[in-house]
Amino acid sequence: MSRPKNDAFLRALLKEPTDFTPLWMMRQAGRYLPEYCATRKRAGNFLNLCKSPSMACEVTLQPLARYDLDAAILFSDILTVPDAMGLGLYFAEGEGPKFERPLREEWAINSLSAPDPYDHLGYVMDAVSEIRRALNNSVPLIGFSGSPYTLACYMIEGQGSSDFRHIKGMLYSRPDLLHKILDVTTQAVISYLNAQIDSGAQAVMIFDTWGGSLSASAYKEFSLAYMQRIVAGLKKEKDGQRIPNIVFTKNGGLWLEDIAAIGCDGVGLDWGIDIGSARRRVGDKVALQGNIDPNVLFGTPETIAAEAKKVLDSFGPGNTGHVFNLGHGISQYTPPENVTVLVETVHAHSRTLRK
Amino acid sequence: MSRPKNDAFLRALLKEPTDFTPLWMMRQAGRYLPEYCATRKRAGNFLNLCKSPSMACEVTLQPLARYDLDAAILFSDILTVPDAMGLGLYFAEGEGPKFERPLREEWAINSLSAPDPYDHLGYVMDAVSEIRRALNNSVPLIGFSGSPYTLACYMIEGQGSSDFRHIKGMLYSRPDLLHKILDVTTQAVISYLNAQIDSGAQAVMIFDTWGGSLSASAYKEFSLAYMQRIVAGLKKEKDGQRIPNIVFTKNGGLWLEDIAAIGCDGVGLDWGIDIGSARRRVGDKVALQGNIDPNVLFGTPETIAAEAKKVLDSFGPGNTGHVFNLGHGISQYTPPENVTVLVETVHAHSRTLRK
Repeated sequence: MSRPKNDAFLRALLKEPTDFTPLWMMRQAGRYLPEYCATRKRAGNFLNLCKSPSMACEVTLQPLARYDLDAAILFSDILTVPDAMGLGLYFAEGEGPKFERPLREEWAINSLSAPDPYDHLGYVMDAVSEIRRALNNSVPLIGFSGSPYTLACYMIEGQGSSDFRHIKGMLYSRPDLLHKILDVTTQAVISYLNAQIDSGAQAVMIFDTWGGSLSASAYKEFSLAYMQRIVAGLKKEKDGQRIPNIVFTKNGGLWLEDIAAIGCDGVGLDWGIDIGSARRRVGDKVALQGNIDPNVLFGTPETIAAEAKKVLDSFGPGNTGHVFNLGHGISQYTPPENVTVLVETVHAHSRTLRK
Repeated sequence: MSRPKNDAFLRALLKEPTDFTPLWMMRQAGRYLPEYCATRKRAGNFLNLCKSPSMACEVTLQPLARYDLDAAILFSDILTVPDAMGLGLYFAEGEGPKFERPLREEWAINSLSAPDPYDHLGYVMDAVSEIRRALNNSVPLIGFSGSPYTLACYMIEGQGSSDFRHIKGMLYSRPDLLHKILDVTTQAVISYLNAQIDSGAQAVMIFDTWGGSLSASAYKEFSLAYMQRIVAGLKKEKDGQRIPNIVFTKNGGLWLEDIAAIGCDGVGLDWGIDIGSARRRVGDKVALQGNIDPNVLFGTPETIAAEAKKVLDSFGPGNTGHVFNLGHGISQYTPPENVTVLVETVHAHSRTLRK
């Protein structure tokens, strides 16, 4: 297999020169697109959409048809892994994801095991293969997983949380139980991501949405250490091509040096940190991905362009090592036409900077 | 007027030596205390409780009767200020605070004005006076306000938010309107805090709960600049005593040097930052307040003690400049007996460290 025709995303992560700064957007296949809403309606609900390889493929490609994006990302949900572990994922209408059986009892924790990704998450692998075929080597496909700590948050709380008191209660009273959950989940994530790579994912990203809610020392022990194990366990090559990985801890800007030291190729940044100062802190140890506030896309075209340029200018000179992205998923209320301004500005301004 | 008998809190903020590290807890008068719940029930609802000086005084004193805390904090709500500006604060049962008239229209923004604190918030000033009398000079009383940006979040969103898309939409499309709101709110906060000082508050704290949701550059322009104006406008002395102030931006750890440079006496820290590294970054420019995760209080007594000692040890040697606190308000689900462990550990261990 050769690299995709547009391989700028892979090159930027691997620190090879590119003519422009590549970009994609977290949650780029999402509710801000009317064509996504139509497919989702046809699917009946969100989980059906995730579990249908052909519809997952369809929505994965939708933003690429509209915008000149430099990567596709598998359409799926991070909670499919705990679902495959038997927790019973469901989506109550108008609410976030929930689990029928939150994980809090010692007996349940002790009987937890890592699911075989092909047996229990075969629909994800089928989606990856189908998307790769449909992409026809135009741009790379990113696979992904939630981080063990972030998955454990949902598994233990049973749903989203504003205070995480159940998982943190366990952390500060029965850390052994939490470590047990994180250990099994780490095994699950490693085999899940490696199966995605074997099925065709050309890069993988670990989303640590909630590690940033921990104290500095708890973050290292309960989130970062497990992501380090995952990075160490990932396949680094497939068919002679390097498979880069990206680690993203939302609200992790304070711990950037620690994150950059776990062996990952790229570090995702939210908008809280100035990307130039992030670059000065990590040097050329890792590539950086980010980091505009998705709410910038509610601004005027002039502001969107100005804020995008601000990120590129702050990253500074050089012709690699930066993947432009939002600092979090795009809002469902985003006017789709505003995304065009962002994409065009990032490509044009980064080409100018390289001259 | 002389200083309170236990003036360790004031001394620590003003960098005068103390025999131990003083502590208080954000939201120390709150729902985790059965006696608070009883008073609140008698009040009928939360807003009645805020607006009754005698009941506000009663609940302010409740945690001091149970625990050996080193400061009292006025029982009130940050949203009383926008309520006094005419936005119509209400609390729907089981939900957070809401405003009847969210502030989004240009005509409404242009007709906004800063309320006179005695005319429109007289109940707060009466509570301050009554609490001071009841404290009888035992420990200092802290007054407080929300930061202009945090108040604007609620004023524009009309309620709490997970994405702040309305205020950020304004920030990125009509920054002039947001600056207008922040300017008027800043004037309101200055006169509100100075009236609290005149009524008896012996220190004041500015709660910037949501400034940490901004990008680095937007934080400086839309939150920190206005807190700097407030700090400059605060009365620094009353009856010959210095009135120290504390600025707390939740999730502001990345911008610590900038916050410490606005002229404040103390900077509040959440638990994301290691307090020792925070101290190395700001030197002795400001005192530091914080910073244990409130969820530690769901741990075992051994863990609570160990985590409290970790914060004190990380802050390091010296006999002033640290006020122990939680990094956020105490959870309503906290077992009250666990607070005793925290308070006793902080006092005992800090006395040992000073020997």
